[in-house]
Amino acid sequence: MSTTSPPFISLSRRLRKTPYHDRVLESGVKAFSVYNHMLIPTVFESLEDDFWHLREHVQVWDVAVERQVEIVGPDALALVQLMTPRNIQRCQIGQCMYAPTVGTRGQMINDPVVLRLAEDRYWISVADSDVVLWADGIAVGRGLDVQVFEPDVSPLAIQGPASFDLMAKAFGEWIRDVRFFRFREVEFNGTTLVIARSGWSKQGGFEIYLQDSRQGHALWDHVFAAGKNLNVRAGCPNLIERIEGGLLSYGNEMTVDNNPLECGLDAFCDLPEGVEVLCRDALERIRATGVERKMTGVVISGDPILIPDDSYVVQADGKFLGLVTSTIWSPRLKQNVGMAMLENDAFDTDNLKLAEPNSTRSVEITGLPFE
Amino acid sequence: MSTTSPPFISLSRRLRKTPYHDRVLESGVKAFSVYNHMLIPTVFESLEDDFWHLREHVQVWDVAVERQVEIVGPDALALVQLMTPRNIQRCQIGQCMYAPTVGTRGQMINDPVVLRLAEDRYWISVADSDVVLWADGIAVGRGLDVQVFEPDVSPLAIQGPASFDLMAKAFGEWIRDVRFFRFREVEFNGTTLVIARSGWSKQGGFEIYLQDSRQGHALWDHVFAAGKNLNVRAGCPNLIERIEGGLLSYGNEMTVDNNPLECGLDAFCDLPEGVEVLCRDALERIRATGVERKMTGVVISGDPILIPDDSYVVQADGKFLGLVTSTIWSPRLKQNVGMAMLENDAFDTDNLKLAEPNSTRSVEITGLPFE
Repeated sequence: MSTTSPPFISLSRRLRKTPYHDRVLESGVKAFSVYNHMLIPTVFESLEDDFWHLREHVQVWDVAVERQVEIVGPDALALVQLMTPRNIQRCQIGQCMYAPTVGTRGQMINDPVVLRLAEDRYWISVADSDVVLWADGIAVGRGLDVQVFEPDVSPLAIQGPASFDLMAKAFGEWIRDVRFFRFREVEFNGTTLVIARSGWSKQGGFEIYLQDSRQGHALWDHVFAAGKNLNVRAGCPNLIERIEGGLLSYGNEMTVDNNPLECGLDAFCDLPEGVEVLCRDALERIRATGVERKMTGVVISGDPILIPDDSYVVQADGKFLGLVTSTIWSPRLKQNVGMAMLENDAFDTDNLKLAEPNSTRSVEITGLPFE
Repeated sequence: MSTTSPPFISLSRRLRKTPYHDRVLESGVKAFSVYNHMLIPTVFESLEDDFWHLREHVQVWDVAVERQVEIVGPDALALVQLMTPRNIQRCQIGQCMYAPTVGTRGQMINDPVVLRLAEDRYWISVADSDVVLWADGIAVGRGLDVQVFEPDVSPLAIQGPASFDLMAKAFGEWIRDVRFFRFREVEFNGTTLVIARSGWSKQGGFEIYLQDSRQGHALWDHVFAAGKNLNVRAGCPNLIERIEGGLLSYGNEMTVDNNPLECGLDAFCDLPEGVEVLCRDALERIRATGVERKMTGVVISGDPILIPDDSYVVQADGKFLGLVTSTIWSPRLKQNVGMAMLENDAFDTDNLKLAEPNSTRSVEITGLPFE
């Protein structure tokens, strides 16, 4: 396991900055990643300190890297449905739906959240791949009557148990009535915020979709002011909390080489009848033959894994049995927790080990999330 | 201008490592960027030291981030032509062509090099956007008879004046006969290397397309052994050399908000008759009305710009007149050189300045490349 310092990143215009970037710097960010060609903060105090704070208080996260693919026009619903095996026919205006996007070979292209803004207008809030290009290609190839583009939308997440109090103070008591995966709109400084009860943690909270990047500082300052007596801090998706919560990360847990069934996303593959879905044949074929591997939680023995920098091969008696796709030391559970994509055989094997040089780390299969 | 240290980058499986990654680390890499969801080295000794060495000797560059989009099947040529305004009908087997990919609104989607490997088989060697998704979307939307995927191909570039001697020693004297933007195939350790005379510098050289990532270390060691008496070093695309050479970088010089005509890519927009090209109408419309802005070289006055981290706004008398998209101090020309996308009005204005707070830096329009 690598425990050396992370390397430096060279900045350029190509690694886009968010509307909150200056505030993130002022808040003492320690490291970034790159996601959808954009910088995302990854650590403020330390992974562990950020983790405890998130579980106990409230944090403001710059998640503008969650770029939106806007699809608007008479064929918008048809296009969104072509891209996902989930039935989005009954997605109402004001509703969010987690809807994996899957290609004709059954390959995972992204695992976004779809928001229906109007009868014929959707946002696809994407993980790290250029879904805007896939959607544009399909639309152009089919001659669909839609516009497809990345709008000026930059989500800011408010996460943690005190997020409800902060948001009520910032925007009004009505915010407490917003149901999970529903959104409402509110005016702010001349722009319309879309506020959804959602977010990439299990600690509760909201995502504020800012539609005017010139208001980034104003929005940041507004929510911080509202959180003054709530011990609010700048934060970001936290690797420890994410793994404990069993939240998948596209590019980490799964790639274009995986299908949604082996990712454990069966519940989102209802393949509605009477509408066109690009991955229908592929997923029906895979369902008929069964998957070859499966996403699972794992516990890894040995010293704390503090700065993982890659996936780790799992083996038994020299045979490849899968990958630990994300892992970290949990200071709460006092063990190394992880998520892994393991071959079917792994589930019948009791001497799973990491394939590191000289490793004696054993791998134990567990459920997700980690309680 | 920021002159502070670059920030750290948090590593994960999502930021993919190349087959040469371990060798890059052993060679003392100082920083990375992220490109096509993959790590690319950006500095070894220093930007300036790397620059002088590249101009005088030979370097080995891990440019595996230049991912390939393989398009194979009866409709391969039709699909590649749909995506680019350049006439690729006459691209021969063994030939490379720089061919901007452009959407129906005239928007730049990428600026790749197309390689024709066989009658019905192409690689699109892409800059930083998921062209594989766009190509797949168009193919699926149109029902084209092609396969579209990212193959296991990882380019390694050999660049610099001594690259010809190194490559002749590594692979034979025949390498000197390979013409610019042509490629040949050669066997190596049980895999077939595609070796093109090309590369992202103006110092001459080759790109070796490795088709088996398990041979990454072997290939790296083989070319280093061949360069033993040539002062070979690990290197990477060099910001100083790139700007001096006027080499555009997708995401820096141009984005999806630009069209190829304002990028100065008119020569690659021949829009061949009798074949389908998605951007035809848009580019004909833009040609008829004229462009609103144009790519150019610029010289910026004042202290050396050593660690630029973003684009810089150009203005005159408070009026926005464009962006310096990339800039750096040239130790050879002893001035700050840059590339800029400037509004038409800027070319008739003689008091252009950077819009930094308290800036007195003037901006002078020049040609490209910098001689």
